[in-house]
This record gives sequence, C-alpha cells and structure tokens, in this order.
Amino acid sequence: MYELCERLFPICRSITGDGVRKTLQMLVEVYGNEINIHEVPTGTKVFDWTVPKEWNIKEAYIENSKGQRVIDFKNNNLHVVGYSLPVDKFVDLQELKSVVYTQPDQPDAIPYVTSYYKECYGFCMSQNQLDKLPEDTYHIVIDSELKEGSLTYGEIIIPGDTEEEVFLSTYICHPSMANNELSGPVVATFLAKWLNLLVKRRYTYRIIFIPETIGAITYLSKNLQYLKEHVIAGFNLSCVGDNRTFSYVESRYGDTLADKAAKNVLSFYYPDYKTYSFLKRGSDERQYNAPGVDLPVCAICRSKYGEYPEYHTSKDNLELISPEGLLGAYEVYQQCILSLENNYSYKINVLCEPQLGKRGLYPTTSQKGTYDAVKVMIDFIAYADGSNDLIDISNIIGVPVNELLTVIEKLEKVDLLTRCD
Amino acid sequence: MYELCERLFPICRSITGDGVRKTLQMLVEVYGNEINIHEVPTGTKVFDWTVPKEWNIKEAYIENSKGQRVIDFKNNNLHVVGYSLPVDKFVDLQELKSVVYTQPDQPDAIPYVTSYYKECYGFCMSQNQLDKLPEDTYHIVIDSELKEGSLTYGEIIIPGDTEEEVFLSTYICHPSMANNELSGPVVATFLAKWLNLLVKRRYTYRIIFIPETIGAITYLSKNLQYLKEHVIAGFNLSCVGDNRTFSYVESRYGDTLADKAAKNVLSFYYPDYKTYSFLKRGSDERQYNAPGVDLPVCAICRSKYGEYPEYHTSKDNLELISPEGLLGAYEVYQQCILSLENNYSYKINVLCEPQLGKRGLYPTTSQKGTYDAVKVMIDFIAYADGSNDLIDISNIIGVPVNELLTVIEKLEKVDLLTRCD
Amino acid sequence: MYELCERLFPICRSITGDGVRKTLQMLVEVYGNEINIHEVPTGTKVFDWTVPKEWNIKEAYIENSKGQRVIDFKNNNLHVVGYSLPVDKFVDLQELKSVVYTQPDQPDAIPYVTSYYKECYGFCMSQNQLDKLPEDTYHIVIDSELKEGSLTYGEIIIPGDTEEEVFLSTYICHPSMANNELSGPVVATFLAKWLNLLVKRRYTYRIIFIPETIGAITYLSKNLQYLKEHVIAGFNLSCVGDNRTFSYVESRYGDTLADKAAKNVLSFYYPDYKTYSFLKRGSDERQYNAPGVDLPVCAICRSKYGEYPEYHTSKDNLELISPEGLLGAYEVYQQCILSLENNYSYKINVLCEPQLGKRGLYPTTSQKGTYDAVKVMIDFIAYADGSNDLIDISNIIGVPVNELLTVIEKLEKVDLLTRCD
Repeated sequence: MYELCERLFPICRSITGDGVRKTLQMLVEVYGNEINIHEVPTGTKVFDWTVPKEWNIKEAYIENSKGQRVIDFKNNNLHVVGYSLPVDKFVDLQELKSVVYTQPDQPDAIPYVTSYYKECYGFCMSQNQLDKLPEDTYHIVIDSELKEGSLTYGEIIIPGDTEEEVFLSTYICHPSMANNELSGPVVATFLAKWLNLLVKRRYTYRIIFIPETIGAITYLSKNLQYLKEHVIAGFNLSCVGDNRTFSYVESRYGDTLADKAAKNVLSFYYPDYKTYSFLKRGSDERQYNAPGVDLPVCAICRSKYGEYPEYHTSKDNLELISPEGLLGAYEVYQQCILSLENNYSYKINVLCEPQLGKRGLYPTTSQKGTYDAVKVMIDFIAYADGSNDLIDISNIIGVPVNELLTVIEKLEKVDLLTRCD
Repeated sequence: MYELCERLFPICRSITGDGVRKTLQMLVEVYGNEINIHEVPTGTKVFDWTVPKEWNIKEAYIENSKGQRVIDFKNNNLHVVGYSLPVDKFVDLQELKSVVYTQPDQPDAIPYVTSYYKECYGFCMSQNQLDKLPEDTYHIVIDSELKEGSLTYGEIIIPGDTEEEVFLSTYICHPSMANNELSGPVVATFLAKWLNLLVKRRYTYRIIFIPETIGAITYLSKNLQYLKEHVIAGFNLSCVGDNRTFSYVESRYGDTLADKAAKNVLSFYYPDYKTYSFLKRGSDERQYNAPGVDLPVCAICRSKYGEYPEYHTSKDNLELISPEGLLGAYEVYQQCILSLENNYSYKINVLCEPQLGKRGLYPTTSQKGTYDAVKVMIDFIAYADGSNDLIDISNIIGVPVNELLTVIEKLEKVDLLTRCD
Repeated sequence: MYELCERLFPICRSITGDGVRKTLQMLVEVYGNEINIHEVPTGTKVFDWTVPKEWNIKEAYIENSKGQRVIDFKNNNLHVVGYSLPVDKFVDLQELKSVVYTQPDQPDAIPYVTSYYKECYGFCMSQNQLDKLPEDTYHIVIDSELKEGSLTYGEIIIPGDTEEEVFLSTYICHPSMANNELSGPVVATFLAKWLNLLVKRRYTYRIIFIPETIGAITYLSKNLQYLKEHVIAGFNLSCVGDNRTFSYVESRYGDTLADKAAKNVLSFYYPDYKTYSFLKRGSDERQYNAPGVDLPVCAICRSKYGEYPEYHTSKDNLELISPEGLLGAYEVYQQCILSLENNYSYKINVLCEPQLGKRGLYPTTSQKGTYDAVKVMIDFIAYADGSNDLIDISNIIGVPVNELLTVIEKLEKVDLLTRCD
C-alpha cells in the first residue's frame, strides 16, 4: 500500500482534470479489475451545485530577474493555488505578495489553497521563503487551462448475496499530500481487492473514488434513491495512513449500524481511539449525513483531518504515513466489514444452559478456575436469546466479534445454535 | 426595577389585606396598563383549602415600664407574627418570652414568622435583643384585625397570535423582604411591560401576582382546566434580585418545555448555574406541579429560597439585592421567552449541503481555518432536518438561540430554509 | 440461624444422596411445617441434561505403610472428590499424586473438587500436606456407591392472596462449607418461617432447596410454564452468611422487578454494596435467566461466590460466617419482600397540595426549618400521581420503603390517598 502511495504522490490532482484520470488508471492496475469511470460534463446541475469547468495545468513558476526559479510547480504542486487561471506577467515584490499565500503559524510549510468557485490565480510558498525575497522584478507564470470538460470519478461494485450494500467512499482531488488524500484511495483499493477475493459476501460492496464535496454531491444526485434503499452502513475513508492514533467521526446522530460497528471494532482494536462528534466532521460524511440524504455513514481515521499539524500543508507527505499506519486502518476496516457480514441474531436451541461437558466443550472436573476456560462460550450463550445481534453480544460480554465467530462455529457444529436471519 | 423595590419595601404585605392591594396599585402604575384585580371572599372553598379571614394591622409594639419601645412594628414589620390577633396586655419577662420568636442560629436577625391557619399572636426580634431584656413589666400591643374579607390577587393577560400560553407566576404576600418577595413581582412587572410592547407575540402571556400557596391554590381552583389546555410553559418568579448566582428548580420530572428552555438559556448565559431537583422546591411550583395539576412550570432564581442565609429574616433587605441582580434575572427570562417564541422546527430546502459560496455566505478561497467562519451556519443546516426544534439544535451544536436567530434570518433571506409550523 | 449452620455443617452433601435427604429433614424440623420432598429418578431427561446416578459414601482415607491415616473423610468430607467411584488399592507416592487435587495458590487449604459427569475417583488435600508426604506405599480407600437412585429436592409453597409468586431458590449440594452453601438454605428456612406467620400475604411464596445447576434445571423442566406465568420476582440465595459486605448480582439485563427491589433496599440498608453484572453470575441465576427461561431472578449475597478467598475450600467454614452476617442477609431479604408486598401505585385524592395543617399533620406556625419536619410526607404526595410505584417513589425521594409505609398509613387514615391496584 505504501508503494502505491509513492507512485500516486507526484500526480497533481484537483477536483477535475487529468490528474484524477491518471490516478484512477493506477488504481485500476493495482485493483486488477474493472473500475467504472464516469465523466460528468461541466455545467451539469447537481442538487444546489453545478459541475465546474475542468482544470489542467502544465507548468508554473516564479522566476527572479536573474532567471532563477524561486518556486517551481515541478518541485511541489502545492505551489499553485488549485484552479488558478493562466498568467504570464512581470511583477514587483509588492504585487507578488498580493498573489502569494503562506501559513504564517507554520512558517516552513507550503499551505494547500484552492479557489474552485471564484476564478483567480495564486501561488503558495512557505512564510520563511517569502520573508527572504528581495525587492526585484519577478516573472510569474502559470500555464493552466480552465475549460468546459468534465468531472471524473470511479466506482467499483462487488456483488454479494443480497442487494443490501456496504458503501465505502474516498476522494481523489488533492495534489501531493499523503495522509489527507492518498491513504484513503489506497486503503480503499486494497479493501476492494480483498472483498473481490472473498468466496462469499452477504452484502454488495460499493466503493467510490470521487473528488471531495462536489464529487459526493454529484454522485448522490445520480444515485440517492437507490443508496437510501440499499445502503445499510457506509464509511468515508480519509486520513488512514499515519501511525499516531485512531479516530472515529460520528454520523449525524452517532446511532447508525456503521457507527455501531466502528465503535465495537475500535474498542477492542485500539481502545484509546478518539471520538469526534459530527460537529467535528469535515469530509464527505457532510454530504452523506445531510438532512434528506440521511445515509448511515461515519468515518474511521488514523489522525483525523483538521486535527494534526501537517494537515493541508506540504508537511503531509510520504514521511508522515507508513506501511504500519496504512495496514492498521486496513485491518480495522476489514474487521468492521466482517462484523457487518456476520451481524446476525442468534438463539440457543435448548432451555437452560446446555450440557457442554457431554459435547467435550466443558472441563469434566470442577474446581475453582475451571469455569473461566469456557466463560466466553457460556456468556455468548447467555445473551444468544434472539434479541441481540452479534455486535450487541460482543459489546455486552466484552469479547471481540472475531473471537465470537469461533464460538459460533463450535456451537453450530453441535447443533446448539440457530442463526435468526 | 431597583427603585420600584425601594418603594414597595416598607409595605406590610400578608396573604390578604390592604398591603396586597397597595402593592398591586403600585405595580399598575409602573406597568402602565390594566391589571385585573380579583377579590375572593373569606370562606371560599379552594380544593382542599378555604380562603382565610382577611388580616390588617395598624400598629404593634412592646414597651418597657419606662415607656420605651423595645420593638416597634413601624421600624420593621417583621416584628409581628403574620396574622397575629390583637392584644393589649402587661406581661412579665417570662410571659413575654413565650410570645417572642427568634432565630437562635442567626442571633442578630429578626425572623419572619406567620401563623395563617391557627389564631394566635406573637412578636419577632433578634436573639441578641431578647437576651438583653431585663426583668420588667412589658406592655405588649398589637392593633390588628382578623375579619371576614377577601383574598386579593392581580392578573395580566397579554394576547398573542395563538391561545397557547406562557404562564408567569409571582407572589405578593411577604412583608419587608427583598430577594424573597419583591424581586419577583418587580421583574414580572417589567417583563409584562416588555411583552406588551412587542409587535408580534406567538403566545399569549398570563402573569399573575398572588399570595403564595393559598393564592396559587385559589387561582388554580378557578382556572385549572383552561390552564391545562393552554399553558405550554410556565415559570415561578421568586428570588430573582441578588447577584450571587443563578439557580434552576426542576419541574416534577424536569422534562417540560419550560425546563428545556430554562436549561438551554442558563447553559449559555451563566454556565455555572445551580440545578435543584424538584425535591428542593418550596414556592408555588409545589402547586403547579401537584399530581393532577401537572402544569409545565419550573423556576429560575438567583439565590434560591431556602438556600441563602438571609432567607426569611430581616437580612433579606434592599442591600441584598441590586440593579444588576434584577437585570440579570430579567434578561434570562427574556431569553427564555424569546427561545419559546422562536422554538420551531426548521428544514433545509436542498439536498446535500447548499452551495453557500454563490450566495456570498461562504469564503471563496479555501485554506485551513476558513471553514470556521461559517461553522455555526453549516452546523445549523446539518441539524435542520425537521426533527429538531430550535432549542434542540442550540443544545446539539452548542450555540445560543439568539445567535441562531441571525443564521435563520440569513438562510430564510436566500430561501434555503423552511419553518415547520 | 448460626446454630442450624453448626448442625448442618458435618453432613456430606452432594447433588444426590442421603446427605441431601438428611439436610432436608433438619430443615423441616426447624421450619416446623411440611416441606414437599421430591425424588427424581436417575436417567430422567431434564432439558439438555440427564439426572445422574445417586452417590453415597461411607468412608474414605489414605493410610501410609505404618497404618497411619494421612487424611480421613471423617475429619473433613472435602478430602474426597465429589462423586468418586469406590477404590481400595495400594499405590506408591507418584501414583498417589496423580489422584490428589490441591489448591497450589492457597497451600494450606483443602480444595473442593467434584466430577459429577465423568466417572473417576480422587482425593483432596492441602498443598502443604502433599509436599511433606515421603516415598511410601499408601493404601487408598473410598467406600462409595454410585447407583441408579434419585435426585432429591425440597419445595415449600406458602399461599398468598394471589397466585402471583415470589420465588426463592437456594441449594443443598455442597459438603462442609459454610458461606457458600449452608447460609443459603438456613436463611431461606427462616424466611419461610417468618412468611408463614404473616397474617396477610399479597403474593404466594415458593421456596426451593435443590442441588445447584442440575437441580435448578430439573425443577425448571417440571415447572417452567407455571413459573413463567406466575413469578413476578425471584432471588437466588447463596453466600449470605459472612459479615464483610453486601453484593448484588444482576439478572440478565438487570431490569426486573427483583433487581429493582434489591437495588432499592440495598441502597438504604448498605449503600456501599457491590454490584456484579450478570457476567459475574455463577449460581442458579444462570439457569433462571437462561434464554427462553427468562425468569425475573437476581441475587443478593454477602461476600459473593467466587469473590472471596475462602470460596470452595476448607476455609469456608463456620468461622467465616457469623450470626450477624446471617441476620443482615435475612433482614435485607425481608425488606425486599416487604417492598414487593407493598409495591402499589398511589394517588393523592385532592388537587394541589392538601392542607395538612387542619389534619394535625403540619406545623401551624411557619418559620425557617418547620417545613423539614414534614418533608417526607410532602415529597411522597408530590410523586403519588399514579404513575410511580412505591419503589419508584422511594428511589425518587430518597426515603426507604419502610419509612414510606408509615406515611401511607397516616395519609390513608385521613382519606387523602388511594391505592391503585
């Protein structure tokens, strides 16, 4: 997964344009199967919004009077404000400063700045670099194009036994940033690979790679009714690459099946995970949870967008993320999916506790302590009363779902358990 | 408001009598409109109670053998037990002590004592003064009258767009005490003045000035059915004059609309406010919340009755209360009323987040931090799903109702919001 | 009660056999009335289980080559593994060790070991004693009999005004142990004596003395339907003899009427009581709360089984329990039963607060502090709105049920209260 991040890192993505297309092609290669690529024309009405013009950029730089490049888009694509109009102009230091953005509270970082819906141009550099610029005549060049075109997104559908769906959404619209961008589509692609290989899937999986906000709105405008009828749980994958913590962002009321699975899995996998209320949302869960949309979508992150210092600057780079960080997130999402796949209610087939001993499931001699060995099974049975689903039982008895799956297998083998579908 | 307290302070009020009438006249002057004055004859049955005889008093004193007045009703009307029968008698020190009440744990304070329902007489003085009295022959005089008469109360009705009512109750039955008595009717009168000037009122306002307990019972016995059908929220105004804290006394189960408004407003206005359960009640919320009465009435106080040392003694005087204390309570009640007036559900008119930028409500350039500026509006929209009323949204997103009213205005202006009536 | 424990202590009980019968005879003597004795034949199917063979034992010992008895069943019946087959054999030290159980973490205690469902034999001794045994030839003898017979249990039914039942279950199947065994049947027997003497009982009382687990399962297999239809609350009596604490073990969801009564009584009687979730269950509440059985049964213990060091060893002896310990448990169960007997809803007969003064129930003179004297009555009235039962009111106003019974009596006497049946 980390390697894929490395390959994707240099590409200049934005909410539209060839960077998105190139990114999707790389994901197709790794996924090894088809990804449906959709192109939505500029000007398409999507709810309250309109698909914007398509933006592409060839090069951009600022040169001083000696012909030295002060900054160059080739070195870091954050140097250009996203959706900048073309420009080719000589300016003095004062005018230069009027079109340069910095992050004064992080003076050595280049900020990430965009202006999607107001046409303008601009450059980004570190505050330190800007402070050192002498009076001079600067040549500012952006060779970009903003034109009628389309918004591009990718969509994978992996069918299951039912048409009920688990929905994974991630975004491909940020230029060279690692945790807040690449970790999301990369983990999503590897989850898709794994899901595709499963011999049996209860649910259908829908995994989309979209530009943030406008992409989610576009996707919803085309699929809302179907999604409302079929999605039983969904997750927004973003910031799943670093190794510092785990975070959980609640859905609008924190009470969906997705929240339930996320909280359950994290409580065992990483008990110190941070919980953020929906007031701390910031990615596409904003759209999925909007009034009237009402999809059961929450988010599990490592260090959450907006909550780590490198966020939306040049410091969110490949050093920030790690193979371990990506893998941890991948495993947590795997466990969420396995929890959902197996989240049935169960009912024990006998009245009173079953005699496990005669089935070889209970120690035959009773002394202090012998009971502990089978406590998980006994506790599972106690709450397998048909009123709790598997995640409920896991929460009540404090045992992870994957451990309970072993118990279920043993009990089903000796015909003591019925799954309530 | 403080001035009005000063004017009302000297009057000797009790649960009946001319002190009540004189007090109501002064309130009419300040209110500037009519207050309906009701007289309920002695002997009228009111639920389990009977309206008592009317009590009036001209003078009262204790004189020593040298003709010096030990205490005089003219100096402080707390010196006489409320509802004392007339007496004119010479007694020795021992007999004197048998009719004098003191507050031994506050030896320099004159306690406030009444005996409404058992005919007797008595005097009150400080423990210190009593301890210094020498053996002597004392002349004890109370020139009072207990006779068939009536119980007097006042009632203001300010009509609104609907017959649904907000109910404010306060009492006028205590002699010279400031926080526990005068602050209540004074703040209520000024709230009535303000309500009367509003150009638009959703609710009808009913504000009553009654003697405590027997007055509330009398009022309920005449109006219960109507009140049960029309009152959506009510407050008992008492002890709203000092500047030490804010207190909130729950209704019987703490779950009425009045409680909801009170808790919401106080949580922003004075987050350190004290909450008292209904077990700590003590004023007319006792009657309004009685089983079968079941009105949605709670109380907001400054220092609550029974919880501050000066309570029911001569120390609860004009020095205890202040213009700031009165104003604070007035403002909190105003905000409760405004919250109730505007407490509709709202629903956003578009699916997904609206594009605020094109309406000038969102920054056009996106960089870290720019989102914060419109966070209140975005959060309001996220919960404007028709299932929450305004106070709910205020509680969820942690923003006071009056700040949300500005947001609502902006959103209604650009047609993004629908009020659900 | 302590005396009865002393008499019962030496008997060698197991889940079947003459020890159980002898124990029941002694309880009949003390109870002074009939106890229904049931015998269920070996081989009877009881849900998922089968009633085992009956076990009786005459003597057992280990003798060294000098004819000295190393251990003797006569000294302590824990020396033999429960349900041991007969044996008479000479063995060397190594073979001896293979049939001896010890409790290594409590080296001076003899553990309590059983093997009901796998035929074998064994001895128990302290680790210390075992460690000192020299190489020798040992004569090991168990003169026991395992044969077709029956499982014995006792049942008391004390009829009340209704067929609704309160269910008490306790067990008689452990050999010489005091807190975990004898305290249970002894306290249950004395509760039965007391219940039998009551002039009026709202509920019918069913008190059973059974072997743990297999007895509960056997009893349920014969009575389940009737119990499900009639039991409104039940308690498992176990470990009610020592004086160190009180413990409460929740029913499966902690929300039955039995839980409600237990929590209420303990909160006043012993506020520092320990709460154990159902995950910490271990006695017959396991069967009563099994899925499909679903009886409203919880447990109140002193030091709970499994939670005190002497548990299931020779140290759980008559020194561990005390008359005070037994009495405390007896009183708590009495109060639970009285709470249930009186747990009606009540409704005050007047609107607004009643005038208690005219009925001699309220001080006639009002001064700071006088209100406190009648606060319990006033608070009771405030919540006597027909929606709360007596235990609810006790919880809300923080006053024990037995104190409220006095208030109810006073209010009923003056016709102010109606009981809602």
